[in-house]
Formats: sequence, C-alpha cells, structure tokens
Amino acid sequence: MRQVYLDHIAATPLDPQVLEAMLPFLREKFGNPQSLHSAGQEALQAIEEARSRVALLIGAGDSEVFFTASGSEANNFALKGIAAARRDKGNHIVLSAIEHQSVLYSAKSLEKSGFSTTLVPVDKTGSVDPDAVRQAIRKETVLVSVILASSEVGTIEPLAEIARVCRAAGVPLHTDAVAAVGNIPVDVRELGVDALSLAADQFYGPKGSGALFVKKGLRILPIIDGGIQEGGRRAGTENVAGIVGMGKAAELARASLAERQNKMKALRDRLIDRFPQKVERVYLTGHRDRRLPHQASFCVEFIEGEGMLLNLDMKGISVSSGSACTSRALKASHVLLAMGIDHALAQGSLVFGLLESTGAEDIDYLLDVLPPIIDRLRKMSPLYTKFLEESQK
Amino acid sequence: MRQVYLDHIAATPLDPQVLEAMLPFLREKFGNPQSLHSAGQEALQAIEEARSRVALLIGAGDSEVFFTASGSEANNFALKGIAAARRDKGNHIVLSAIEHQSVLYSAKSLEKSGFSTTLVPVDKTGSVDPDAVRQAIRKETVLVSVILASSEVGTIEPLAEIARVCRAAGVPLHTDAVAAVGNIPVDVRELGVDALSLAADQFYGPKGSGALFVKKGLRILPIIDGGIQEGGRRAGTENVAGIVGMGKAAELARASLAERQNKMKALRDRLIDRFPQKVERVYLTGHRDRRLPHQASFCVEFIEGEGMLLNLDMKGISVSSGSACTSRALKASHVLLAMGIDHALAQGSLVFGLLESTGAEDIDYLLDVLPPIIDRLRKMSPLYTKFLEESQK
Repeated sequence: MRQVYLDHIAATPLDPQVLEAMLPFLREKFGNPQSLHSAGQEALQAIEEARSRVALLIGAGDSEVFFTASGSEANNFALKGIAAARRDKGNHIVLSAIEHQSVLYSAKSLEKSGFSTTLVPVDKTGSVDPDAVRQAIRKETVLVSVILASSEVGTIEPLAEIARVCRAAGVPLHTDAVAAVGNIPVDVRELGVDALSLAADQFYGPKGSGALFVKKGLRILPIIDGGIQEGGRRAGTENVAGIVGMGKAAELARASLAERQNKMKALRDRLIDRFPQKVERVYLTGHRDRRLPHQASFCVEFIEGEGMLLNLDMKGISVSSGSACTSRALKASHVLLAMGIDHALAQGSLVFGLLESTGAEDIDYLLDVLPPIIDRLRKMSPLYTKFLEESQK
Repeated sequence: MRQVYLDHIAATPLDPQVLEAMLPFLREKFGNPQSLHSAGQEALQAIEEARSRVALLIGAGDSEVFFTASGSEANNFALKGIAAARRDKGNHIVLSAIEHQSVLYSAKSLEKSGFSTTLVPVDKTGSVDPDAVRQAIRKETVLVSVILASSEVGTIEPLAEIARVCRAAGVPLHTDAVAAVGNIPVDVRELGVDALSLAADQFYGPKGSGALFVKKGLRILPIIDGGIQEGGRRAGTENVAGIVGMGKAAELARASLAERQNKMKALRDRLIDRFPQKVERVYLTGHRDRRLPHQASFCVEFIEGEGMLLNLDMKGISVSSGSACTSRALKASHVLLAMGIDHALAQGSLVFGLLESTGAEDIDYLLDVLPPIIDRLRKMSPLYTKFLEESQK
C-alpha cells in the first residue's frame, strides 16, 4: 500500500545526514562532555559546534542557546525560569489564547505560586492583535509569551510588532517557535524576542532535542537544578548524539530553507485550494496566506477528526486532528475554540503537515482517498442527516 | 597508544545491541507516540515495551515508571514533584550529606518556596546511619532522599534499613540509584523505597534517557507541564530511540548482572589492593566491601586530582576526579568533605569506574603508568617537599 506521511506537526523523520552525524556519538565517541579527559573534550567540542549551528539558524549568539530535551521543556524553562527570576518585579503573565499546552500549563503551575495570567484573544484567523497585547500588559507583568506559529492552524503571528509593544512596556517576550524554526526564516534579532523555544523533531532532527534561546542579559532560573551543564542553567548529562543531530539538522535547514519553503508552499496551496472544491462544507482554519509553508488545516463539518484520521490510516495516510501532545485526550482543540469555531465543528479538525519529501502525487492520492471517507462517515452522522433533511425543506 | 577507559561513572559506551535496537527508531519508525495513526501506535508500543523492561530490572510495575531525559531530571522530578504534592502535609526534607548535586540543588530550590532541609551526616566510609535519619525526621517532614550508592566513593547505603525508618515515620523515601541500577541488583520492593531515579548511561544505554520510579499511590506533580505524555506527569515528545535504548540496556543488564558484578569486583579489588601498595600515602575512599562492584576511588596525598587525570589522559587512560557534573568547577567534592576528609587531601581525589569490557591488563597498565605520574607531580608539590623535609627531621 502507498504510504503517505502528512503529520509533520507530530514528528519529522530524521534526515539521513543527521543520523550520519549522530552515529559516531552513539558508537566510539561516548564521552561525557563534562569529563576533563580527551573523550570528554571531544564530546564537549561536538556540543559546542552544535550550539553554534543552532545559534546561526536563529541569528543568536552561541552563549544564548541552552539545550533541552524537548520543545515542551524549553517552554517550561522559559515561562517558569523567567517568571521566577523576575518574581521581585511582579506576578503577572500575558499569553495568547492559542499557546501550546506546555506554555498554558506552565502558566497554570505558576498560578499556584501567586502568579496570574491574562489570555489575549485571537481573531477568526488565529491572529493575535499586538494592540490587545499592549492592553493586557500591566505594571506587574513580568513576561509575555506568544506563539510564533501554531502547528494546529498554521497562522504565523505578527511577532515583530508584538515585540515592539513589549519592548515599549519593558516586558520580556518569549515565543514558542517550535513549529516555525527550520520551516520558515526565524531571526531572534529581527523578531526582537527575548526568549524563543525550538525543537529538532520539527526540522528533520531527532526527538528528545530542543533548545531555548535566552537573550544575553535576561535572567532565567533553571527548572532542572544540579550540575554545571549549560552554564548551570540546565543540569543533567547532555544527550550528546541528540544535540549533535539537532546541530546538523539546523545546518541543513539553514542551507535549504528557501527551497523547502517554496516547494512545500506550492503543495500546501494545492491542498488548500482543492480539498474544499472536492468536499462541501470543509473550512480552512488559520490564516490563508500568513501561514506555515508546510501546514494545511481544515474543519470538516458533521463528523469527527478521529474517524477521518483512522480511516486515512487504513489507506496508508498519516495525518492528525490537532496537537499530538493531547490527541489521545480526544478533546476539542482550545486553539480552534479560541478562534470562535463552534465545538461541533472543531471536532471535525484535520491537520496536514507536509514533509520536504512530499510530492504532488501524495497530495493527489489524499484528495482521491479522503472524499469517499468523508462521504461514508457523514452518512453515519445524525448531524449530517438532520442537515440534509433541513436543506431539503 | 593503548586506550583504557576507566570513567564508567561519567558515561558508559552504548552496548552495540542497544544501538541496534535504537536504529529503526532513528530511521523508518519515526512516528510520534502520541499520534493516533499506525506510525504513532508503533512508537507507543515500543516505548511501552521499554517501560516494561525498565520496570522488570528494578522490580516495579510498568505504570510506576516515568521516563525523563536524565538522572538529574529524575532527581529534580522526585524532590520537587513529591514535595509540591505534599506541601499541605509539611515543608521539611531530609537528605544525606553526600547526595548528588541534582538532589542537593533541588532541595535548595525548594527552600525558596518555604521548605527547609536537614542534611544527615555520614561516617568516614560514607555510610548513612539509619538512626540519624530517624532523628532528622520531624512531623513536618514530607520526604527523605538518600542516595543508594555514591559514584564518587562507591559506598552502598543501607537503604532497606533507612526505608524501614521512613515507613515507621510515615514519610516517603526517594533514592538516587543512578550509579547503582544496572550495576548491582536493585529491587524497589526489597529496598522498600517509594521513588527511585536511574539513568541509562550508567548501564550501557544512551545519554539523554533516565527514569523515575514512583510507587503506585504516591502523589507527584510534574516539573515539565503540558501534554499528556507519561500519564500527564512529564510533558514533551518522547525521545523514542533513547527510551527504546534504555529498555534494551535494562534487558541486557538484567540478564548479565551477576556475571558483570563478579568480573568487575575482582578487577576492582585488584586495583584497591595494589594501588596503595605501589604508592605511599594513597587512601581508599568509601566503604571497603559495601561498595559498587565497578568503582574504586582514592585520595592521593599532596597533589591534585586534575593533574593526575590530565597526565593519565596523555597516556590514553580516562578517569575522573569526582562527579562529571561538577568536574569543570574544580572544587573539592562535598562528598569527601562530608566524610571528614580534609580539604587538601580531598583535592587529590581519583575515581576509577570499570566497564564490563575492562580487563586485568587494563588495570595493570594503569598501575604501571600511574605511580611515575604521581612521583613527578609530587616532586613539583610544595606540600610534598615540606612533608619530606619534616619526615627527615
């Protein structure tokens, strides 16, 4: 059976060059980077090279990049670490309503130690209004966190404008750029952000490798205390192979970003244009143009995302109906609800994430296979039956 | 040049069978375990198999094992997560004085939110007296944490007795078993502990893979909030390959533990017996018999550990002079100081960690190479010159 993987937002495969770069560190080069002997020095040098490559991809200084084990850990580190370091300045945090769970629940956890949170709403395209951020900032605000691009709806936020608002208010800005880094150009100086999270498994690097950019001079406390790794900001023996893999993936992303983007954008648009033509009552979610080049997401009325997903899986097509981090919870996405999509329609969410290797024939295969699945599922849907009856009146 | 790696305590190489088990998850099996499609199911099944293998190694139930990215993260998770969940019961923690930095600094971090810590002293062999733990426990004590075996001095603590003390007092007991698991038999039920940390890179598994055992029924709050991974207790996309590798390493450790132990113990004793015979004023640190089978540590009077380490490195021998997590800080070990070793002598720390592959010829090579190094370094030491002068009086 044809296999078509369209779930980039959950995970990308490793680029074979990334694996090649990792293998020596899974074989003979097994030293602990903190060891003072040659085996340790070799590992240390490798992670410092990887740090430079990651820094280069996002326009940061080497000493501003801290390795973590995931994008979620980077988000927790940013929220909790910056809030704790600035506790004497206030106890209020501003987030957008469409943040990833690792940002939202980090803020919830901070609420237990006396912080409060304001959620800035989004419009129906999932866009955050910089002016709404301005209004949400109070004198006790110690941190603003707004996602750079939502993997669920693809919308790229006006981060540079939001950064100007934050800078004017003297409040640091963190952005969850996990879905963005490696897929669109991201430059921390151009964006003007103070902290930025990324994860290698979103750009053909390994799972278990994330990083947080923290602008020089911004104080942050560790969430994992202990040894002196990562300048004392993140204890624990480094996942050397994973870090080296992320470095290589960053280097490859930097070299091929423009090409990747253009290729995926064309295929994405093919899907965005044709799917609603083939099936009635299918709605694109997120912003039509200001969106991730590899992402196309829809709500299909009358049926549930899981049903479509499992039927597509039987045809060899892997997709998701939202964030993998909560997919097994089977709840309507808080992102879609925040965009004003009603609960029933939000259940019909389908998210496609294209890979560098995706071809037009993959999209066409999907567009052949999916409409009859939707047809069949809708025939079993009481909501659809009711709709048909009413439209025939 | 002959290469002799004797720094097990910093890192072990991957067993080739472990790498073999990981590779499919670094190649074609790249699904996100939380994805509902087949690629996700395949990854989920792999991490659940790994969980069973880790659970089996330590006599735990599958649902009692939570994956982390390091032993340090597991220690942070245990200390902060259990303390936070029991905050309504009290605000006091009991630790031994020879805990790893990730335990000590987790407690320090808890002190900022109103906890206080009592450090239980150790004797000159590095052993914790269960009765001293009993005396340190107060009615506000919510957690005791005592290391199972210190990698720095090798001493295995009387954990089962300490557990009886804690159980009688109704206080949960965590143990940092990072240096122990995979190297000596560890059974959470026999020990009677409520939480236990481990790390794969101490038993021929990958770096970036740790786990925390949490006894069923013991409440623990996450330190990394977000998605529903690890039962909602540790968010972030799973490092599938790393977890699979740890599972395989656990399986291998379980199968060969007895053999590994006996072989290494014999070599360890060869080193412990012969080194002080070859060089005067060399002292074994830690307990002579109740110690890790792969560990031999010494203090060499009049000179510094770093000097010996770097000279040994030039001869192809990798060793450490303490915990890798702080080696670059070049401070005297708090573990040695807590054992009553004076500051100057503590500077002369040398720690040898044997591998499964270590042979008698490796030990003999070390014993040939090391004494002239010590001789040369001592000749440059003002302390030694003074000692010689005084002893000649």
